[in-house]
Amino acid sequence: MDETVHKGLDGVVADETRLSAIDGDAGVLTIGGFALDELAGNATFEETLFVLYEDRLPTTDELADFRAELAEYRALAPATRSVVEAAAERGQSAMDAARMGLASASLARPASEAGDVNGETAAEDPERDALIAVAQLPTIVATYWRAREGEELVEPRTDLSHAGNYLYMLTGEEPTDSEVRGLETYLNAVVDHGFNASTFTGRVIASTESDVLSAVTGAVGALKGPLHGGAPGPVLDMLEETHAADDVRSVLAAKLDAGERLMGFGHRVYNVRDPRAAVLSEGAEAFYRAEDGGDEAFYESAVETETVARDLLSDRRPDLDLETNVEFYTAIILRGVGIPQPLFSATFAVARVGGWTAHALEQLADNRIVRPRSAYVGEYDRTWTPIDER
Amino acid sequence: MDETVHKGLDGVVADETRLSAIDGDAGVLTIGGFALDELAGNATFEETLFVLYEDRLPTTDELADFRAELAEYRALAPATRSVVEAAAERGQSAMDAARMGLASASLARPASEAGDVNGETAAEDPERDALIAVAQLPTIVATYWRAREGEELVEPRTDLSHAGNYLYMLTGEEPTDSEVRGLETYLNAVVDHGFNASTFTGRVIASTESDVLSAVTGAVGALKGPLHGGAPGPVLDMLEETHAADDVRSVLAAKLDAGERLMGFGHRVYNVRDPRAAVLSEGAEAFYRAEDGGDEAFYESAVETETVARDLLSDRRPDLDLETNVEFYTAIILRGVGIPQPLFSATFAVARVGGWTAHALEQLADNRIVRPRSAYVGEYDRTWTPIDER
Repeated sequence: MDETVHKGLDGVVADETRLSAIDGDAGVLTIGGFALDELAGNATFEETLFVLYEDRLPTTDELADFRAELAEYRALAPATRSVVEAAAERGQSAMDAARMGLASASLARPASEAGDVNGETAAEDPERDALIAVAQLPTIVATYWRAREGEELVEPRTDLSHAGNYLYMLTGEEPTDSEVRGLETYLNAVVDHGFNASTFTGRVIASTESDVLSAVTGAVGALKGPLHGGAPGPVLDMLEETHAADDVRSVLAAKLDAGERLMGFGHRVYNVRDPRAAVLSEGAEAFYRAEDGGDEAFYESAVETETVARDLLSDRRPDLDLETNVEFYTAIILRGVGIPQPLFSATFAVARVGGWTAHALEQLADNRIVRPRSAYVGEYDRTWTPIDER
Repeated sequence: MDETVHKGLDGVVADETRLSAIDGDAGVLTIGGFALDELAGNATFEETLFVLYEDRLPTTDELADFRAELAEYRALAPATRSVVEAAAERGQSAMDAARMGLASASLARPASEAGDVNGETAAEDPERDALIAVAQLPTIVATYWRAREGEELVEPRTDLSHAGNYLYMLTGEEPTDSEVRGLETYLNAVVDHGFNASTFTGRVIASTESDVLSAVTGAVGALKGPLHGGAPGPVLDMLEETHAADDVRSVLAAKLDAGERLMGFGHRVYNVRDPRAAVLSEGAEAFYRAEDGGDEAFYESAVETETVARDLLSDRRPDLDLETNVEFYTAIILRGVGIPQPLFSATFAVARVGGWTAHALEQLADNRIVRPRSAYVGEYDRTWTPIDER
């Protein structure tokens, strides 16, 4: 047997998938058979989910049915609401609240008998659990936010789209079409990305034939880790700072002089421009230029920040070729559509739960339990010493 | 690059560990440097945990401090209690309750400022979070059980041992020394076992530098899956049936005639007798023969069931050489010490959370994010069709 230690499983192909493909050299991300730039600006998030689950676009009737079923699972069980509110009251992060909420989202399964609302919940159904996870997470995040802000809970509405209802629950106001479109572009752009650590976590859990809600609960815990990437919060801090400043160049130069990193440049997987960055950049421009769109002054300063930062970076680090990355445009677009900065990571989860659930279903459909080997580096044959002789 | 698809990561060495080693040919399981038969019957569960965390036995003072700190984290936060009780009321399994409870166990972190009991919880501390996870899980399971049975909650006591307090919270009565020793033997025997799916799940989550409570929450979701193994519930069903019957042989022969499997025989990893089975077999005998031990009539019928079952199996399936496995003796020992059958899997988790937390800490100490590759088998370059043209 091969005894090589594959730490981090670097380079190891762990399974097949039809859900997404990353071509780092060409800079192409394929989602459900569509190049991202073909999908992201066209699809509602519900259509993207349908593509992931069914491997094709829905008809008008199928989409209406799918939207209605998804909307049906938006309301939280009372115990889920309580634990999410407790997370807010105890000062825990939105990602902690997301973990607690998803862990208990099985309470939102319908009662197993008609009329039996206090009795047993229905058994696990992987497809239904996938929709429950996707539908509950925006409500979990919005419930956390309202509690954290000391505001009244805004109950979900079933007549709004998935993205529209999320924005509505955060603010209590119906979002504009451009805000919904801007958020959908973001959700589509980051819905799936190969076997990243959170997606792979969900697949390992599903590989024991556990339920889909257990799989996504594990996944959200992995996404929480700072090494996972995709955390655009610090970018927004920088953009707010340059927006408030008179001279963008002196702010950024001072950061570099102090040895700080400029947030939002450089990435790991792509050798050319990250295709998600391209899609989000276009989405951000469309959003901020629209009549019912965003704060154009902020957008102008963000664009200036990008130009100046890349100029400074290419001057000081010509060896690195640091492209503007996903986090940079994510910060611009999420700020614009009205997502508070403390919810950026949780909003990434609101998107990625689409991928997690699709991967869990794919794993279950052609499964083998994931059980690698380990290399033992400890001692052998220690002998027991009674406590009074230690 | 090697494009071989390692489905299930079969044979792939994913990392190093000093925590446990499985020698399937020799039938030896090493836990923290001790062969299992050296450790399991000697150590309290607290000592086993200390060995996993510190790689050595504790002194008398260290053990006292460790026991005291662990006991301190036993009580659940109110929101954790509510969500676990809701799981019981909605007829969900003990493993669902364990997932919900562990997901919210971060609420049991101490307040971040002295006296600030309603404000922010303290920040994540991996070692403390490990103890919180280990300490909270028995209370989560017992709270679930008492709610499910419609009984008053029994608050944890800090003066009892970890195993003793678990049994106390289930029944409201102090267990005998033999009951505690029997449960400890079980907890020690199954505390760790290489990179099984749940342990590996926890390591993947920790590899993003997420918190230890997120790691164990994912792990418990993986342990829930029926393919994970270690579910001794069906063995007990069979043992209760033969215990109630006049003629053990005719009961078992009828099962085999009907094409049913006899539960509790055969295993996957070991080519000789599973070392855990040996330790549990001895532990069970010692427990049932003790004056303050278990129901000897049940034990006699279980031993007879083993003898007759192996006789029948060797007669009908001489090709298989089906050894009595861990689940068989687990069912005998857990029934004896007073663990209700619906809590068998969750009691496995009460043991294994020791391994999960030790693995998460080991992962964090020498980390690389776990991010395998995937082989794309889907389509490319699909073109978008507007909804009214579908």
